[in-house]
Amino acid sequence: MTSSTTAPAAAVPAHAFEFAERVRWEDVDLVAIVRYSAYTRLVDVVEAELFRAAGLAHPTILDRHGIWLVRRVLHLEYHAPAHFDDLLRLRAWIGRVGRTSLTLHVAVFDDAGERLHAAGHLVLVAVEAAGMTAVEVPAEVTRALAPFQG
Amino acid sequence: MTSSTTAPAAAVPAHAFEFAERVRWEDVDLVAIVRYSAYTRLVDVVEAELFRAAGLAHPTILDRHGIWLVRRVLHLEYHAPAHFDDLLRLRAWIGRVGRTSLTLHVAVFDDAGERLHAAGHLVLVAVEAAGMTAVEVPAEVTRALAPFQG
Amino acid sequence: MTSSTTAPAAAVPAHAFEFAERVRWEDVDLVAIVRYSAYTRLVDVVEAELFRAAGLAHPTILDRHGIWLVRRVLHLEYHAPAHFDDLLRLRAWIGRVGRTSLTLHVAVFDDAGERLHAAGHLVLVAVEAAGMTAVEVPAEVTRALAPFQG
Amino acid sequence: MTSSTTAPAAAVPAHAFEFAERVRWEDVDLVAIVRYSAYTRLVDVVEAELFRAAGLAHPTILDRHGIWLVRRVLHLEYHAPAHFDDLLRLRAWIGRVGRTSLTLHVAVFDDAGERLHAAGHLVLVAVEAAGMTAVEVPAEVTRALAPFQG
Repeated sequence: MTSSTTAPAAAVPAHAFEFAERVRWEDVDLVAIVRYSAYTRLVDVVEAELFRAAGLAHPTILDRHGIWLVRRVLHLEYHAPAHFDDLLRLRAWIGRVGRTSLTLHVAVFDDAGERLHAAGHLVLVAVEAAGMTAVEVPAEVTRALAPFQG
Repeated sequence: MTSSTTAPAAAVPAHAFEFAERVRWEDVDLVAIVRYSAYTRLVDVVEAELFRAAGLAHPTILDRHGIWLVRRVLHLEYHAPAHFDDLLRLRAWIGRVGRTSLTLHVAVFDDAGERLHAAGHLVLVAVEAAGMTAVEVPAEVTRALAPFQG
Repeated sequence: MTSSTTAPAAAVPAHAFEFAERVRWEDVDLVAIVRYSAYTRLVDVVEAELFRAAGLAHPTILDRHGIWLVRRVLHLEYHAPAHFDDLLRLRAWIGRVGRTSLTLHVAVFDDAGERLHAAGHLVLVAVEAAGMTAVEVPAEVTRALAPFQG
Repeated sequence: MTSSTTAPAAAVPAHAFEFAERVRWEDVDLVAIVRYSAYTRLVDVVEAELFRAAGLAHPTILDRHGIWLVRRVLHLEYHAPAHFDDLLRLRAWIGRVGRTSLTLHVAVFDDAGERLHAAGHLVLVAVEAAGMTAVEVPAEVTRALAPFQG
């Protein structure tokens, strides 16, 4: 069931960014576990906070370089349910950086950082804001993200 | 507990607009009933659909009159829980239309249209898009909403 | 437009509970301000965190007393838009505690705690879990909430 | 950028299930397009409606067979932005049915059914409700889903 593109729990690198977020009432379904779609909220949160930590909070990239990093792919694998009111550790790190795209890995752990609830990755593509055509990832962006890359 | 500003179930007028919407997985909480905050999704849906039925789907008013109808007040009373997968009847009608504001009443019924799950109202204020200061509700807007008013 | 039941900005009492929460991408609408329905997420967050601070995080009351505090009324007034990525100060405090119900006031301020974005209140009713009929608010609950009451 | 596991637009089979859903205010972000995470709401809707069309609306499978079909994988690729108030055609069909799992393909088209906004797939695994261990997909479930399989 697992995909080769998703890092297993053991493979979260030491340079991963980490952010705590609590499971809210809105995140939980009628069997009292985090519903599948609520994980995308968690993915959005840790993506935004990693970029903030890198000095690239929206709309910095847009203002400085005239580009967006648009999401092309979301891949998510569900390992073990998280529950209402759990405090979660969201981890994220940069994988491959290509010419016009990069991969952001994400993993949702329990508060102890031991149990993996879900893991996956995003593919982000640099596009110029005007025409939305793919452009090179600016070197300044790559440098800013380097602390979260292997 | 009930407020004089919220119409009781029996008081839904014959000219009320009606729209069907299903309770989705995301709307339901861990005790299997529609969570309080999900009702605001239902309020948004019936508000948008009443305006569409009146020929005022966004951004018509903005484009024609340069105004927004901004929400100033949301008042909601919860009467009886709705459940996962229920098909609901959302009803909405225009109450008082003042010089710069109007009241939109909303009620969430079961599929039979008999059991009231929640009811409340919105106060919407006409503001000019540029400065966001209150302006008169355009006569054309009042006319378009008349079928849903008593 | 304002209701006598909603405390104005100046009236937030010194004993109000406070919790910081950031405006997320999901909270913002196409005119780049927090959409009306996203405020209910903020209300849910500060309600849950005030109860946690009082030692009453769900499901404590249910487990100890066999009751729920169900929401009967949500009243919200929108004062000034908040924007994407703003860090907000959510404030909440207990108003009147009646025999079977209590009022929870909420206010959403900017990070400086000066500009009021929205304010309102909830009416919560104690119901026994089995039959969902109103019961007295347990004295232990009232005592636990006292630090957040005037 | 595209994955071999996601069917291209041209590859939506004739037996795909189709369901219309409108882009709501809550689905749209500050650049006026459907935000990435809102697509998971659309995926949830078409998954639920395909199962309903197959006579398997929740909790039928649970009640009849004592199993859940839990989501193991969500894979989504974003092709072209959808906009506020668009009426979308959600299409879904069953791919491979294995011993204990099945693949559900999803595609989000515009109202004309021509422009592909997003496409992807889910992997669902049959687990017995008691221990949550994988079990065989019941033959009755496979039969019920056959109309939506090639």
